[in-house]
Amino acid sequence: MQQSPHSPQSQSVSASAIESAAQLSNLQQTYAVIPRVRPNTPLLDSIDAPSDLKTFTTTQLITLADELRLFLLYSAGQSGGHFGANLGVVELTIALHYLLDTPQDQIVWDVGHQAYAHKVLTGRREQLGSIRSKDGLTAFPERAESVYDTFGVGHSSTSISAGLGMSLALRYQGCAQTVACIIGDGAMTGGMAFEAMNDAVQQDADLLVILNDNDMSISCSIGGFSRHLATLWESGYQVDISETGEPVLCHRPDMQGFDRRKRHKEMRDVPQLEDNLFKAIGFTYFGPFDGHNIPELLRVLSLAKRVSGPVLVHIYTTKGKGFAPAELDPVGYHAISKLPVEDDETKPKVADTSVAKAPKNKPALKYSQVFGQFLCDKAAEDDKLLAITPAMEEGSGMIDFARHFPARFFDVAIAEQHAVTLAAGMATQGVKPIVAIYSTFLQRGYDQLIHDVALQNLDVTFAIDRAGLVGEDGATHAGVFDFAFLRCVPNMVIAAPKDENECYHLLNTCYDYEGCTAVRYPRGVGTGAVIEQPAQIYKIGEAVVESVLGSNDAPKKLALLVFGTMMTTAQHAAEAIVNGDTESEYQVHVVNMRWVKPLDTNLLEALLAKGITHIATLEEHVITGGAGSAVNEYLLNESAAFKRTRPVIYNMGIPDRFIAHGSQAQQLADCGLSVDGVSKQLRQLLS
Amino acid sequence: MQQSPHSPQSQSVSASAIESAAQLSNLQQTYAVIPRVRPNTPLLDSIDAPSDLKTFTTTQLITLADELRLFLLYSAGQSGGHFGANLGVVELTIALHYLLDTPQDQIVWDVGHQAYAHKVLTGRREQLGSIRSKDGLTAFPERAESVYDTFGVGHSSTSISAGLGMSLALRYQGCAQTVACIIGDGAMTGGMAFEAMNDAVQQDADLLVILNDNDMSISCSIGGFSRHLATLWESGYQVDISETGEPVLCHRPDMQGFDRRKRHKEMRDVPQLEDNLFKAIGFTYFGPFDGHNIPELLRVLSLAKRVSGPVLVHIYTTKGKGFAPAELDPVGYHAISKLPVEDDETKPKVADTSVAKAPKNKPALKYSQVFGQFLCDKAAEDDKLLAITPAMEEGSGMIDFARHFPARFFDVAIAEQHAVTLAAGMATQGVKPIVAIYSTFLQRGYDQLIHDVALQNLDVTFAIDRAGLVGEDGATHAGVFDFAFLRCVPNMVIAAPKDENECYHLLNTCYDYEGCTAVRYPRGVGTGAVIEQPAQIYKIGEAVVESVLGSNDAPKKLALLVFGTMMTTAQHAAEAIVNGDTESEYQVHVVNMRWVKPLDTNLLEALLAKGITHIATLEEHVITGGAGSAVNEYLLNESAAFKRTRPVIYNMGIPDRFIAHGSQAQQLADCGLSVDGVSKQLRQLLS
Repeated sequence: MQQSPHSPQSQSVSASAIESAAQLSNLQQTYAVIPRVRPNTPLLDSIDAPSDLKTFTTTQLITLADELRLFLLYSAGQSGGHFGANLGVVELTIALHYLLDTPQDQIVWDVGHQAYAHKVLTGRREQLGSIRSKDGLTAFPERAESVYDTFGVGHSSTSISAGLGMSLALRYQGCAQTVACIIGDGAMTGGMAFEAMNDAVQQDADLLVILNDNDMSISCSIGGFSRHLATLWESGYQVDISETGEPVLCHRPDMQGFDRRKRHKEMRDVPQLEDNLFKAIGFTYFGPFDGHNIPELLRVLSLAKRVSGPVLVHIYTTKGKGFAPAELDPVGYHAISKLPVEDDETKPKVADTSVAKAPKNKPALKYSQVFGQFLCDKAAEDDKLLAITPAMEEGSGMIDFARHFPARFFDVAIAEQHAVTLAAGMATQGVKPIVAIYSTFLQRGYDQLIHDVALQNLDVTFAIDRAGLVGEDGATHAGVFDFAFLRCVPNMVIAAPKDENECYHLLNTCYDYEGCTAVRYPRGVGTGAVIEQPAQIYKIGEAVVESVLGSNDAPKKLALLVFGTMMTTAQHAAEAIVNGDTESEYQVHVVNMRWVKPLDTNLLEALLAKGITHIATLEEHVITGGAGSAVNEYLLNESAAFKRTRPVIYNMGIPDRFIAHGSQAQQLADCGLSVDGVSKQLRQLLS
Repeated sequence: MQQSPHSPQSQSVSASAIESAAQLSNLQQTYAVIPRVRPNTPLLDSIDAPSDLKTFTTTQLITLADELRLFLLYSAGQSGGHFGANLGVVELTIALHYLLDTPQDQIVWDVGHQAYAHKVLTGRREQLGSIRSKDGLTAFPERAESVYDTFGVGHSSTSISAGLGMSLALRYQGCAQTVACIIGDGAMTGGMAFEAMNDAVQQDADLLVILNDNDMSISCSIGGFSRHLATLWESGYQVDISETGEPVLCHRPDMQGFDRRKRHKEMRDVPQLEDNLFKAIGFTYFGPFDGHNIPELLRVLSLAKRVSGPVLVHIYTTKGKGFAPAELDPVGYHAISKLPVEDDETKPKVADTSVAKAPKNKPALKYSQVFGQFLCDKAAEDDKLLAITPAMEEGSGMIDFARHFPARFFDVAIAEQHAVTLAAGMATQGVKPIVAIYSTFLQRGYDQLIHDVALQNLDVTFAIDRAGLVGEDGATHAGVFDFAFLRCVPNMVIAAPKDENECYHLLNTCYDYEGCTAVRYPRGVGTGAVIEQPAQIYKIGEAVVESVLGSNDAPKKLALLVFGTMMTTAQHAAEAIVNGDTESEYQVHVVNMRWVKPLDTNLLEALLAKGITHIATLEEHVITGGAGSAVNEYLLNESAAFKRTRPVIYNMGIPDRFIAHGSQAQQLADCGLSVDGVSKQLRQLLS
């Protein structure tokens, strides 16, 4: 790797600075509580841009790490948000911004959960409290937010591809800036990271990949790759870097505080030094190193960034580092909610990552819990049920299932493509796999769904969580394209439950159906609807008239066709229309369409026969190509009654733009999909 | 791996059979011409199912390989089709069907190009001549076609996922059949193969993966993985398998006929034995072995299938093996066209993989050639242009570009996800990348297109080839969902040229636009339209009225809105309507919509103002969510004039089912999209 022309010599690390590494790292503090009062952080407060770091001594950098960590704790207590990953990369973030000359040099964070420290050091310290709020900082790096955010992230495993693109474009243009990608061990299981490494070697690109190995992703990072990393650790060796950038094999120095790898104890092979995957693919490999040791990071990274070709530096970090409760429970402290005002103990609540909207007196279930309950109930009576998740065991509500049915639970790591085709393979052998996946991540397995599942009409059920707008995580995690990209696929059956109870029975119905099905439900809690037992089999493609409001003699008769959980909004909006209708002008038929594919065309015909004058569709999905479009297509192309009666059709949904983060309610209101918004649209339609 | 309960002992290979391996392999024949007359193949003719193989001696199996190869040559001459890969796996296919107890044991072919020999041995010998024809055998394994076709393939890199799914489902059900996946070195670069290997180790699944290393994919297989395989070869070592299934390191025996790896000469590292990628990820590795040596294959595979856990057997084969011209030019002989009747030389024509439909007196360009010409022309004047292909250099028409602008050409191997995000990374650095990709393969990079390109509105142009129905390759390769899955994505600009000339200028226009664009064009040749110079910049979102047929006084006025290359069909259909209209009842406005997004709503309004009574849309794309739906959405939701004038709307396109292989013309006719079909639909609409 060429030295950046922007990188002054003052940033290289002298030998004397390194000498005292061992003592210095003892300066690091561990905190037990989250401060409620903004802590005193004089060094941190002096940094308005990474360039302010350049004059710091190593001792100051270490103190800065403590201040930054304490500030992150305080800030997370105020705003909630991702937590563990950020505490784990405090030292790395400082070292990178000290060594590199950002924003000319490019830092690419994989996933964005780990970029809070980066945001603080790049001029956004005082805004950090606004993170994830409407008009506040985004939860992830975002190009529009800062020149230091080189690449928007949110989905995993993209950083090496993006960084390689930067590196190749810079080389082509004769520039020699450093490009550094920071990727976690969990994200590395995503196949596109492998694709990118393969290509980086092909291109002999100058690319510095830092593998931030914290022994876990959101769920446990699992599989052959994880075992491989464990092997590199258990070998007891280290590939150090010489002053001239050469790999030097040595015994690994004592690295305190890494009491890990316990779950790899069952490894059947003797740890061995050979067979390094990164070297096999053609990267120059250095590691493992202590990722919390700033002098060590400075030494290694300052040398590694000068090595030409693709380089991987393997560092170990501890998720939740420096906050005792998080170090003990890194999964629980992946993210936290903001501290409640009345809570004196300043102990954070482990994150409820979903939008809370249940009435307080009712313990409403999250949709992921409904799915979890269905899984357990069904598995108990049907031993053909197997369930697959791409590293979202907890988020998808599968913890109980995994505990009770371990032989039938498959966490395939961050590997959406594989998850889908794995299910297809299973289905060829007479079992009935369910793939639990977030809507936004199903985009990663789209070709596999078309090609391996739907084309062969294999019996796979997709439980699509986090559909619609998802609130604080913003546009990267919104699931607002799935009706469009799924309903064009032949053989697909697509259900959209109106509430938790219907979700349960639609899961049951789709599971029962021998073919390719999807049940699509939102993030967070539902209406509090009680799940009725036993599980029912609904008729596929049959909608339900939820209510008819207003007089049968009204001259304007509206069919309000609702897909999914917008039903409550639809009901309120319909009531607002009819109640405000003093002249009995309107009748509203509120229909729970329940199925996006196949549509209940019989019901549509029945409504037309009743003299419907207006048809409105409503969905938490982009209007473009959505469920409403399916209604348009049917009526325009196939309904003879429509051609005679010609009611007015109108589609309501999310407009054709990416919706920024904010609360889910704010996002819906922004799209004209609050009760007021929908009422207003309907009034306009009817007037 | 457990021995299959169905596998009789008679199938295990005795030591005496192996002794004479060296002499036996000398029996293999190499052919110089493709036979026009069906060759004499007595052994092959005796096989109606794989079970008929079981009594064969090794010598007979070797003779069978010769017969099978000759039969494949003859058959390919009769029907055309994929070629090189099939000749390369003749011995492997025989060995697998001899050793395994299919269909109980599961053979999963990655991609399907290599399954012809498999089809012949599994009862489809006499139908092979019908391959790729309407109602004939499919080009790929297909579950509906045979119980021996365990998994439909066509897209690359899926076999390990599918096979792992089978293995896990079988284990869960207490079955111990063998699952063998055959994957090429090119397919291995696809990230999902890596995801699947990672998971196979996690599951400690009994899975036999056979890496068929023929040193190439359709384009050259490139990158770190390919170099790694070269390293394993150049080390001179072999990991052999002992009688008890243990890996045994030894010097590789002399393997004649593998004069390869020349392009890896530039490898900078000394070949070394350590750092085996498959071992690193946790597979038990054996290899490399000679994949044309039947006794050796029988010995190795019969032992390997008994080894428990995930096992990878690395074999070397020669693409086009046994046919001298193909061994010399394996890329050229990837597939061939059928022998012309008048050709006495019995030399095959190297495949034109596209549908020929140009008039004979005009050298019509393929759309891929139009793209290639645009690339070269534009690159000559704009040094910001970079071009990316996921292993489709030749198919996408990029050979000239790659030759003239090697520093600006990026073949990233089979890695669609990476290709898209690589482009996004490049675009952040002020260059203008173009991603050349087939419509069906863009489904693999869908999330990356949404998340990494469109969300950040980066300046990336997608040149989408093979859109619409693709003829003989069938449903797996059809590109009939792209309008639906692209137009729901905010920021996307989508163009659909009517002919070659417009394709050229739309590529230029989209390239010029600073944002996320796609130009979508079909397989094969166009109408013969001459490309006008200089390149033009069209107005984005502006449609063109192509012609107005019939009288202005006609009571029924049809706007026929055409998206893309259905224009010729539309013109002929419109003429048929108006010419058959003796009472001057119809006027037809034929509109070249040119843009799927944004739509030319001004033109739509102008048409409404002219008193249009009927609107029909036409596209080579599924009706569901397609371009026609965009017209519906606009008119229903946003057009005040539409609400007043209320013309009838009708959408024409591909129905909601997967379309089987056949010629492109047959497929279109099957969908009601021939000239006759469209005329008929329009007459029905207007009556």
